[in-house]
Amino acid sequence: MISSAPTPKKLTSIEEYKAFLDKYDTFLLDCDGVLWHSNTVIDGVLETVKFLRENGKRLVFVTNNSTLSRPNYVKKFERLGIQATEKDIFSSAFATAVYLRNILNFPKDKRVYVIGESGIVDELKEVGIETTGSSDDNGVTMTHADFGTIEDDPTIGAVVSGFDINLNYSKLAKAFKYLHNKDDVPFILTNDDATFPSISGHYPGTGALAQPLVFALGRQPLVMGKPNKPMLDCFFSNYHTDPARTCMVGDRLDTDIDFGAQGNIDTLMVLTGVSTEKEALDPEQPIKPTYIIQSFGEFAKLA
Amino acid sequence: MISSAPTPKKLTSIEEYKAFLDKYDTFLLDCDGVLWHSNTVIDGVLETVKFLRENGKRLVFVTNNSTLSRPNYVKKFERLGIQATEKDIFSSAFATAVYLRNILNFPKDKRVYVIGESGIVDELKEVGIETTGSSDDNGVTMTHADFGTIEDDPTIGAVVSGFDINLNYSKLAKAFKYLHNKDDVPFILTNDDATFPSISGHYPGTGALAQPLVFALGRQPLVMGKPNKPMLDCFFSNYHTDPARTCMVGDRLDTDIDFGAQGNIDTLMVLTGVSTEKEALDPEQPIKPTYIIQSFGEFAKLA
Repeated sequence: MISSAPTPKKLTSIEEYKAFLDKYDTFLLDCDGVLWHSNTVIDGVLETVKFLRENGKRLVFVTNNSTLSRPNYVKKFERLGIQATEKDIFSSAFATAVYLRNILNFPKDKRVYVIGESGIVDELKEVGIETTGSSDDNGVTMTHADFGTIEDDPTIGAVVSGFDINLNYSKLAKAFKYLHNKDDVPFILTNDDATFPSISGHYPGTGALAQPLVFALGRQPLVMGKPNKPMLDCFFSNYHTDPARTCMVGDRLDTDIDFGAQGNIDTLMVLTGVSTEKEALDPEQPIKPTYIIQSFGEFAKLA
Repeated sequence: MISSAPTPKKLTSIEEYKAFLDKYDTFLLDCDGVLWHSNTVIDGVLETVKFLRENGKRLVFVTNNSTLSRPNYVKKFERLGIQATEKDIFSSAFATAVYLRNILNFPKDKRVYVIGESGIVDELKEVGIETTGSSDDNGVTMTHADFGTIEDDPTIGAVVSGFDINLNYSKLAKAFKYLHNKDDVPFILTNDDATFPSISGHYPGTGALAQPLVFALGRQPLVMGKPNKPMLDCFFSNYHTDPARTCMVGDRLDTDIDFGAQGNIDTLMVLTGVSTEKEALDPEQPIKPTYIIQSFGEFAKLA
């Protein structure tokens, strides 16, 4: 397939950096590969963040990780020396809460069953949605004689599935019961990443952990996180920025750049992460950034 | 799609029953829907079983359920009044053991990591294959700080995944580690049933529970159970019966009848279970039984 998207423009000079920045008020920033590698901040990024803010730009950090609430994510930024408040962080858990509250108008008399960690529970609580599951069902063991004890719960108005290191069969069986033959109960995934980047390599991720339900139910969930459009819809429903003056910055074509493309906003690809310039310029590449720059840290040269 | 398979012949008279039975020495029998419904034996089945055996026919009971070893399955038959010995039972757990031993020549110095229950562990032990995982890893809880503790284990020569009511993230993470980037380590599913028939309805089954690994690894497992061909290959490698004189009897087109069709043996569909005569005769039905009979219990009329 030959992409119909225009060839990305590579930014290389100070003049091009300036002209690029003049076009946007808001930057959505992927974190790993753009701001840092694991626990090391990429050269020039601290200066770039400071410079952009001093020049009135809004920076919003976008992450698919649903395990931490925004206040806990802020602590990670602080540890790396990047100033951030809760309002600067847009996570898939927060996006899920915004989606249920603002877009689905989640009923006041219903609860959400959560397969996932505290990030989801805390964000839903923050928008006034009661949850069950999650840590309440950690460590619950079942025997074959216990199947009869799984009862339907008509108070469950949605099932949200995120990364859950305490996944067990009881959680899967309950979620299955709450969703089976009930197409009116939303089944939402915070994101569908196949693997989870742990401190020691990749392991099965949120998308993988939801597959037992997808396979047994024969039903596709609504997926919030990058590269899916709901996350960007939630962003605009919450931040009210002008899409024409908003740019998504990321290192991966298949998540970050596709995320911007699906939401019809401009994109800047950095070469400090997963995808390469060659991949972005390949004529058969269907997902193309609007711009390419060596590193997000390059803008420090304007400071 | 119009099926090229001949139209199934429906057996309705005593003469047709006799002519049918004369063609075969061995009958592979699906259990639920053919012999019984849950805990109730279907009318005429006890007499049919007795009559066929008195007339020198070999009956082998075929099940995808991997949670029980054959000795424990025998007890279920005894409770329902059907005589059976271990040798009459061919389960997906036993087939997996036969496959690893006879077909893969599983190395003596390797072990199998099992996600699954005692049925698999016992059957593998019976053919001299050492296992790890299964109940050893029940109840193991992990935190995000524990990812570093998951170590590769070069003694693992295969991963077998069956139904496991004690599934947890630690088992998934270990199995992922043992299989990731190792195409030479076999990844075997006892069966890929989407749901598990529990005492109180269906819940996520073996095929569903294996999906986190399938999704995260991006790798398809070898599936043993019906309708897949490896189970029938194992059957013939173990029982040495003549395929031309062997008939598969079942109630489901998509599992039992497809199982026989994929193995090029004749099939008899009973109408006491899931699939209907109309479905079997539909010109667009790609999977067709050789014969149809109202019930396996009909043969009691010959006694």
